[in-house]
Amino acid sequence: MPTYSSMDKDSLKEEYKKLAEAYAEYKARGLSLNMARGKPGSDQVDLSNGILDIVTSKTNFKTEDSPDVRNYGGLDGIIEAKRLFAEILEVSPENIFIGGNSSLNLMFDTIGCLMENGAGCEPWNKQGRIKFLCPVPGYDRHFGVTEYYGIEMVNIPMNEDGPDMDMVEELVQSDPAVKGIWCIPKYSNPQGITYSDEVVRRFAALKPAAKDFRIMWDNAYVIHDISDTPDKLLNIFDELKKNGNEDMVFEFASTSKVTFPGAGIAAIAASKNNLALLNKRYTFQTIGYDKINMLRHTMYFKNLDGVLAHMQKHKNILKPKFDLVIDMLENELKEYGIISYVKPNGGYFVSVNVFEGTAARVVQLCKEAGVILTGAGATYPYGKDPKDSNIRIAPTYPPIDELKTAMEVFCLSAKLAAVEKLIG
Amino acid sequence: MPTYSSMDKDSLKEEYKKLAEAYAEYKARGLSLNMARGKPGSDQVDLSNGILDIVTSKTNFKTEDSPDVRNYGGLDGIIEAKRLFAEILEVSPENIFIGGNSSLNLMFDTIGCLMENGAGCEPWNKQGRIKFLCPVPGYDRHFGVTEYYGIEMVNIPMNEDGPDMDMVEELVQSDPAVKGIWCIPKYSNPQGITYSDEVVRRFAALKPAAKDFRIMWDNAYVIHDISDTPDKLLNIFDELKKNGNEDMVFEFASTSKVTFPGAGIAAIAASKNNLALLNKRYTFQTIGYDKINMLRHTMYFKNLDGVLAHMQKHKNILKPKFDLVIDMLENELKEYGIISYVKPNGGYFVSVNVFEGTAARVVQLCKEAGVILTGAGATYPYGKDPKDSNIRIAPTYPPIDELKTAMEVFCLSAKLAAVEKLIG
Repeated sequence: MPTYSSMDKDSLKEEYKKLAEAYAEYKARGLSLNMARGKPGSDQVDLSNGILDIVTSKTNFKTEDSPDVRNYGGLDGIIEAKRLFAEILEVSPENIFIGGNSSLNLMFDTIGCLMENGAGCEPWNKQGRIKFLCPVPGYDRHFGVTEYYGIEMVNIPMNEDGPDMDMVEELVQSDPAVKGIWCIPKYSNPQGITYSDEVVRRFAALKPAAKDFRIMWDNAYVIHDISDTPDKLLNIFDELKKNGNEDMVFEFASTSKVTFPGAGIAAIAASKNNLALLNKRYTFQTIGYDKINMLRHTMYFKNLDGVLAHMQKHKNILKPKFDLVIDMLENELKEYGIISYVKPNGGYFVSVNVFEGTAARVVQLCKEAGVILTGAGATYPYGKDPKDSNIRIAPTYPPIDELKTAMEVFCLSAKLAAVEKLIG
Repeated sequence: MPTYSSMDKDSLKEEYKKLAEAYAEYKARGLSLNMARGKPGSDQVDLSNGILDIVTSKTNFKTEDSPDVRNYGGLDGIIEAKRLFAEILEVSPENIFIGGNSSLNLMFDTIGCLMENGAGCEPWNKQGRIKFLCPVPGYDRHFGVTEYYGIEMVNIPMNEDGPDMDMVEELVQSDPAVKGIWCIPKYSNPQGITYSDEVVRRFAALKPAAKDFRIMWDNAYVIHDISDTPDKLLNIFDELKKNGNEDMVFEFASTSKVTFPGAGIAAIAASKNNLALLNKRYTFQTIGYDKINMLRHTMYFKNLDGVLAHMQKHKNILKPKFDLVIDMLENELKEYGIISYVKPNGGYFVSVNVFEGTAARVVQLCKEAGVILTGAGATYPYGKDPKDSNIRIAPTYPPIDELKTAMEVFCLSAKLAAVEKLIG
């Protein structure tokens, strides 16, 4: 089969007719499928049901540094939970803050803290117009937090080994209004890219023009492998130390996609100075987070090995789904020359660049045939994908047979939209 | 015994000697007692242990409006939890937002939301200097939130039936910079005062100079009776409706002192307009709160009757403690004419006004004898009690024998400080 771009108009029109007929058949089936959000499937959440049996009325509620996890006390979490995240993130327990159920909320709080209190300089909200760098495509909820606080967003292209570091260095080191950057360094949302050692080292060695510049290092998928050849990410704190730059990074993680979304625990890893900064906000914001749920997690997993054994079970469920998506992109679309994508070794998404100028149309066609995708543009700040090309596929939630049907609709829609566009 | 103020210097010096000797004996005992925070005792948290057995791996995780409480979805909570708080707060379930484990955090978020987004007007943080009214004595953490956001605090005296409403009306209705007021309308922290029907009606009928004026109605102790003759609080939303003022109030409550501090659930009751305002923030802040913990609470209590039966057990534990404190104030201190207090029918505190100018000294004397009290001044904005007189006693945490000893130290310290002051 020739690529669509190389076909003449008559051949395209013939192709269009065939595609439109096939599409009409799917539409007639009245499907209701969803590949929109990075949501674990029911079989995945079932994996963690045992955690609900672990803390009972008979539990010993006194832990190493908490006289009673049921009562007030301990703003930054119990030591057992700090140790667990310290192992996961390869830092020291004294660099860990354990929060509530949501790392997104911890990021929102961190930006809020920097807006209100600043980081050793004037509070960000007193400094006039400030900017954040946003590697694109990226995570819509990161962009949402930045937009909520009125911070201007600057797109940074993603290469196959991470953000374009020439551009990052140029902007961070020359413009004092650039206060931060969003990073998902391992299995990035949506592309599944893991930053190379060189990229991590260049981040750690930044000499920002703004003294209060901070990297938001959202390590959401730190242990979320889906491949037998998982990626390795360099520990940025080790690299920061070499540069005396430990205060430049706030790292985030959670068990939302380890145990239960919404009922997990979330953590921040940061230097002592940065934890002290956050403390200025948290002492006003809350008396403390749910220590019983922290205990539930530490009793259930015990240590990193326990967590990793659990993640293997997630992998067993997720790998066939990701394989299916990649196989279909490969076999159904690649030959037409209308898509590009990166095959991820972990994370929750497959990022597909469809034929330029057709992403919104593909999402619309899918929707009309009963398949919900993340909105086109959602992976860009302000919802504006300049090429109208990127679509984030989330293969985790639907059962595999539904995923197959949804992907059939997606592939058909991608082709249909490309041919429509070429016909003009 | 004559009052200290009526005694001559020689008699005072003699009294001082006796008191100092008695104090030295307590000091020599090396006590370590705490009456500082409104923290339930271990026997109280034990009451709720059963809630930890109610959600297990065998639970049905599908509820009326949640396909799976373990997974993402439902920013404002499950309907079952909304109904429970709707019963407690006597409002409709559609006026309820269920948050995380902390009503303080919900209040912090609400103020943050009004600072960033405003309430139909310019965001508060774009309006220059703004003010909050603070009935005093009051709750230090309320004052902390206001101070965190740089809002000026104005003291409002508390009468025996609530805040001085003449002053509230005068300030709210004349000054557009007055944006809000903190209220704990039932069993106020620290005095245990419940607002009279007239006070509630006057609040509901306010005609604020600022269109974006909001009452923070922290109903923390709505069901926390400790007496057989509990107070009744008028439902402010009913009164607001009569005045077309439903948007003027955000009400807060939690189960922190019903089940577990830190592992309970918290709620906001507000008009649809106000919930929509909050939604503008919460959609950026989080994906949702812990629905499993919501389910734990609704399965355990079932309804308001279940909650009230549970609160009766708390009352059985708390009543003897409060009785002890009141008896000791009455029998050990009253005759000397150096204290005043209100006997509370519920809540978590007894607020004592010691001899003017001696509160800090009393707290210091207690501390040196091993009894920790809330810091003097903590019940006032900026930690400044103009009369240096108010001390908040929290009788709930210590076992009753320890409470008795702590109160002996307190009474002795109050006398010693008063006599010291009078001797000059």
